[in-house]
Amino acid sequence: MKDDQYSLLKEKIKSNDFNSVFILVDENTDKYCLKIFIDKSEINNYKKIVIKSGEENKNIDTCIYIWKELNSHKADRKSLIINLGGGVLTDIGGFVASTYLRGIEFVNVPTTLLGMVDAAHGGKTGIDFLGLKNQIGVFSKPIDLILDSIYLKTLSKEEYLNGYAEVFKHSFLTESIDLSFNSLIKLDFFNDVEFIINKYSDVKKEIVKIDKYESNSRKVLNLGHTIGHALESYSHISNNIGKLKHGEAIIVGLITELYISNKLKGFPLETVDKLKQVSLKYFRRISLKDSDLKGIYDLMIFDKKNDKGTVNFVLLNRGGKPMIDQKVDNDIFIEAFAYYNK
Amino acid sequence: MKDDQYSLLKEKIKSNDFNSVFILVDENTDKYCLKIFIDKSEINNYKKIVIKSGEENKNIDTCIYIWKELNSHKADRKSLIINLGGGVLTDIGGFVASTYLRGIEFVNVPTTLLGMVDAAHGGKTGIDFLGLKNQIGVFSKPIDLILDSIYLKTLSKEEYLNGYAEVFKHSFLTESIDLSFNSLIKLDFFNDVEFIINKYSDVKKEIVKIDKYESNSRKVLNLGHTIGHALESYSHISNNIGKLKHGEAIIVGLITELYISNKLKGFPLETVDKLKQVSLKYFRRISLKDSDLKGIYDLMIFDKKNDKGTVNFVLLNRGGKPMIDQKVDNDIFIEAFAYYNK
Repeated sequence: MKDDQYSLLKEKIKSNDFNSVFILVDENTDKYCLKIFIDKSEINNYKKIVIKSGEENKNIDTCIYIWKELNSHKADRKSLIINLGGGVLTDIGGFVASTYLRGIEFVNVPTTLLGMVDAAHGGKTGIDFLGLKNQIGVFSKPIDLILDSIYLKTLSKEEYLNGYAEVFKHSFLTESIDLSFNSLIKLDFFNDVEFIINKYSDVKKEIVKIDKYESNSRKVLNLGHTIGHALESYSHISNNIGKLKHGEAIIVGLITELYISNKLKGFPLETVDKLKQVSLKYFRRISLKDSDLKGIYDLMIFDKKNDKGTVNFVLLNRGGKPMIDQKVDNDIFIEAFAYYNK
Repeated sequence: MKDDQYSLLKEKIKSNDFNSVFILVDENTDKYCLKIFIDKSEINNYKKIVIKSGEENKNIDTCIYIWKELNSHKADRKSLIINLGGGVLTDIGGFVASTYLRGIEFVNVPTTLLGMVDAAHGGKTGIDFLGLKNQIGVFSKPIDLILDSIYLKTLSKEEYLNGYAEVFKHSFLTESIDLSFNSLIKLDFFNDVEFIINKYSDVKKEIVKIDKYESNSRKVLNLGHTIGHALESYSHISNNIGKLKHGEAIIVGLITELYISNKLKGFPLETVDKLKQVSLKYFRRISLKDSDLKGIYDLMIFDKKNDKGTVNFVLLNRGGKPMIDQKVDNDIFIEAFAYYNK
């Protein structure tokens, strides 16, 4: 990590690069993070825009609200938006900035572990639409990304651990032995967090760098997300199961997709067993009935990463190498959930 | 112009580049242009999306409607949107395509002269918001642009002539003597249209090529638009004057801004007189009161191309060269309208 994560932003503000500065927060980051951010960034002239927290507010109505606020405070092409919050906030704030006046500059300051290792990187912005995740959005990069673990202290234990689903995923995608899943689980998930943010956000950055628009190689990042995204969407539109956090859904996606990797590609079952065992220490087990599985499968068919009505999975082979665009039958999908529920 | 404007699109469709094809039309192009387009492009498998015509429908509600239609017909990342219509339709269709699933491909088929020489070029997409033109949008280019004058035959004379405001503007921005304003007015505005589309769309393409994101040199295209855009917006939100077409507003913008160019930079008054005289042959004179001028001035201050509350004009100097970022006092602005009304 940089010595002073805030230096670039401070410098730009001091040299009057912007006509006005907006800080986008949600109810939580307004309360717990804004003061910290102001102290550290030394910004003293800004306008605050507050939105409601939660995935259910990552929608076009919230965008319209933010666009209106920008408009009523006469934001112009040389205004800056600082997104201070979790993945939902950086996704929506990035989208709003990238479409206001055909794009103004923005800075991401993720305040959750999930945001720090995943959401705030990779230039994806967007909102949910008709119950589908990130259905509307653009590829657009912030001019600066501030990774400061101080904000993690403001999180509940549950919210904090939520970020580990993506860390697990990155541990399966890295070629570095030191960052592999088996190395990761030897770390202290609370005390080693600086190391974890630093190293695992780099895993994502490297993958994204070679494929900015998700044409091909970047698709490996979808590991655990084919099922995970559909499960998360399903939990938001169905009354059968409670609303899941992103991390809760992704961990189920990872376990089931790695089980499928074992069945179809020979990925070691003992690693899948280990993942299931470790993750159930940190995440609650989700109860799913047969009717839920049908709902999840139907949503998968509609995921934007698929085409022609087929579902594309990322699977890991015997040696742990990711293989993209793999087709999976409904039978194996059902079997993977039987394994998860066992 | 290309021999067969439709060849690239035909080829892509034949080689199955797309999982599905959507044609976006408005009530008018559905009625008068779609059949022509289908015959010429030989597309036989497509879904039609119809929106209401008119600038007042270039808004977020129309976007939501189109996104829903795409969603309900399971458009995926390999779907194509063909925008068949005037500037309003290509602007909104480009924005919807560029934000659906973080961007799918689109083709522009402008059906008005304004679209052919201006709106469909330059990679600008967007919608109006809170009465302000193109407040929300992105820079994004179509994969193909089909310029076919056959669609102009479907227009009313008034709608057809509307496109000439931008042609006039381009004639002031080109360095080619053959395309200068004095050469342009010797042409037959009806019979020489092939030549006009071809040559004057090239003027825009050249200017845009060197400055894709409107950082600097491209700003010359704003000639006539500082006042023109504000006047157009004003006509849509005020009850004092009737709603103006884009071309009607831009022609007033051109006359007044060239008058200001004469006052401040020595641009020849006889050319401004000539423009006023020629344009009043084709466009009705707009009656504006002092109270209207105040409303227009207030809107100008908020145009997205301005910053820090000042208004930036493009003015032409004595030799006709454009000068960007010029400040203009309210007095001269009032005087320019007195000249127009005279």
